[in-house]
Amino acid sequence: MTKSLNSNFKRQRRNQKSAQELVDGILSGNKADLAQGITMLESSKPEHHRMADEIINGCLPHSGKSIRVGITGVPGVGKSTFIEAFGNHLIEQGHKIAVLAIDPSSQKSGGSILGDKTRMETLVRKEEAFVRPSPSKGSLGGVAKATRESIILCEAAGFDFIIVETVGVGQSEIAVRGMVDFFLLLMLAGAGDELQGIKRGIMEMADALVITKADIEEKTKVKAAMTEYKNAMHLFPPHESDWIPVVSSCSAISGEGIEKINEIIGSYANTTKLNGFFDKNRTRQDLKWMEERVNELILESLKNKNGFQEKSNELATKITQGKISPFRAAEQLLKDLNIT
Amino acid sequence: MTKSLNSNFKRQRRNQKSAQELVDGILSGNKADLAQGITMLESSKPEHHRMADEIINGCLPHSGKSIRVGITGVPGVGKSTFIEAFGNHLIEQGHKIAVLAIDPSSQKSGGSILGDKTRMETLVRKEEAFVRPSPSKGSLGGVAKATRESIILCEAAGFDFIIVETVGVGQSEIAVRGMVDFFLLLMLAGAGDELQGIKRGIMEMADALVITKADIEEKTKVKAAMTEYKNAMHLFPPHESDWIPVVSSCSAISGEGIEKINEIIGSYANTTKLNGFFDKNRTRQDLKWMEERVNELILESLKNKNGFQEKSNELATKITQGKISPFRAAEQLLKDLNIT
Repeated sequence: MTKSLNSNFKRQRRNQKSAQELVDGILSGNKADLAQGITMLESSKPEHHRMADEIINGCLPHSGKSIRVGITGVPGVGKSTFIEAFGNHLIEQGHKIAVLAIDPSSQKSGGSILGDKTRMETLVRKEEAFVRPSPSKGSLGGVAKATRESIILCEAAGFDFIIVETVGVGQSEIAVRGMVDFFLLLMLAGAGDELQGIKRGIMEMADALVITKADIEEKTKVKAAMTEYKNAMHLFPPHESDWIPVVSSCSAISGEGIEKINEIIGSYANTTKLNGFFDKNRTRQDLKWMEERVNELILESLKNKNGFQEKSNELATKITQGKISPFRAAEQLLKDLNIT
Repeated sequence: MTKSLNSNFKRQRRNQKSAQELVDGILSGNKADLAQGITMLESSKPEHHRMADEIINGCLPHSGKSIRVGITGVPGVGKSTFIEAFGNHLIEQGHKIAVLAIDPSSQKSGGSILGDKTRMETLVRKEEAFVRPSPSKGSLGGVAKATRESIILCEAAGFDFIIVETVGVGQSEIAVRGMVDFFLLLMLAGAGDELQGIKRGIMEMADALVITKADIEEKTKVKAAMTEYKNAMHLFPPHESDWIPVVSSCSAISGEGIEKINEIIGSYANTTKLNGFFDKNRTRQDLKWMEERVNELILESLKNKNGFQEKSNELATKITQGKISPFRAAEQLLKDLNIT
């Protein structure tokens, strides 16, 4: 009781909105409230968890009506420039777009390597766009969780085209693939995929592969790269969606090929909505989400139980003294708490 | 009871050894038993979990007496060739080396992209070497867990130099950094770090950065790259270990610079053992290991509880029918099972 009063008091002092106020703001399309809601999702403070849950539950009934697109490619491929050009094109077509980023790569310093704030300059100034940099700290799991939940909030705020950008080349793509409808891989012509660090596993996940900077590179080089990638993609097992991945090219500067990418995504959505894969994929993602959320809730509730922290600290001391192995200590902890 | 008899029977039929037999074999340095033990750790079958636990507990008292080195670099940098040359050098110095790999990148096809079997040909034939490819499937978490436990088994089998190789460029490096004493980053001269996909976060974690293929590249190019990287590394915050990361170069073909890398690692071990960081780091890794193991055991035990699977399936059906959000379903599941 005192605690709750206390936190109410603090909230008022800081002029922070309640969960319901934020939900109302988000549903009315207020970008400041959307940003504040996402900040709650990203917060690691336990006192923000309940508020985050309320916001998500408030937004969920109004979510789902967007196309969710994951975009990846190595640093240097021109992701931001592409997203800026593509996003502006989508806005011209009447869309409202949200750009979220997953980049848990610079864990040690906790800072984003890309200096997100200076990117996508024209896009961030548009009323119809919402650009949110990646949370600057946290594990991939935590960052991915926050991004998945942010999608819900963006959709509730009326954004109908969600772009999830990922900077890494590897594990984070798998996380993103698990939360989007369409996965787009950007590549450079002529750099060779070995050096680009693009791995088979990433190419296999792509629904489209687009060669960027088609204005700078020689036409023959772009064509050769497209042929090479088309051949490579043919060797992969067919997608469960029955969609045949498309290889294309574009220039974010001249705008050439940008419109085509939107058409490809539209065609993918039509095809997979007709054959049932679109919904099947979303349901599967939802089931996975439930599973992850269950794990999270279980661990949260047990670790708040009486004695957990004390016992855990005792065993940690023993590990530090070399008296017990971490493996045995874990077993002991569960036994002491009657969990097994 | 019947189950246990049954599994004993099956075990005998397949001529499979018991946990104790495998531990005895591992402690006597038998590589076939070591391989079979690791297979148990990697197994996702619940009936193998208990056996895996017994093997780990049997090996733990005999572990810890090695130096653990993580090696990373983009595909194409020549990791295998390097590890082959470096490993053979270590064997000449009287070491027994184990090479483990973490590569959860090709999740969809489940196959390793590198065709591990044909790699490190001379090394795999040496009595003093044990080479184990990455498990071909599983999440990064699962693969990392198996690798961490495999280190224990290799050490118990008498291997005193453990190399953990990672192929990705991103999240898996963070996992590897969490289980080794020394982290080595391989780089190419003149390819530019942007194109190499090496991110600031990875460079920051490195205790040494080594330019490979120094025989192929022009000397001036190698020198220029070394200077460039030295300058770049100076800009990072100092390591907690007080170790100043070293930039070096080598040729796996001519052998030039290979010995020096072993000296660098030795010097690192001396320095950090003297200033206490070596043990502090291992203890910290152990505490993290305990935490992860606790999470794993909690989830395992709860999911084996009565009603969990049934309730979970019921809610999954409701999600599929669009009757409940995954987020609410997770809350409902815990409520139904009285976990919260």
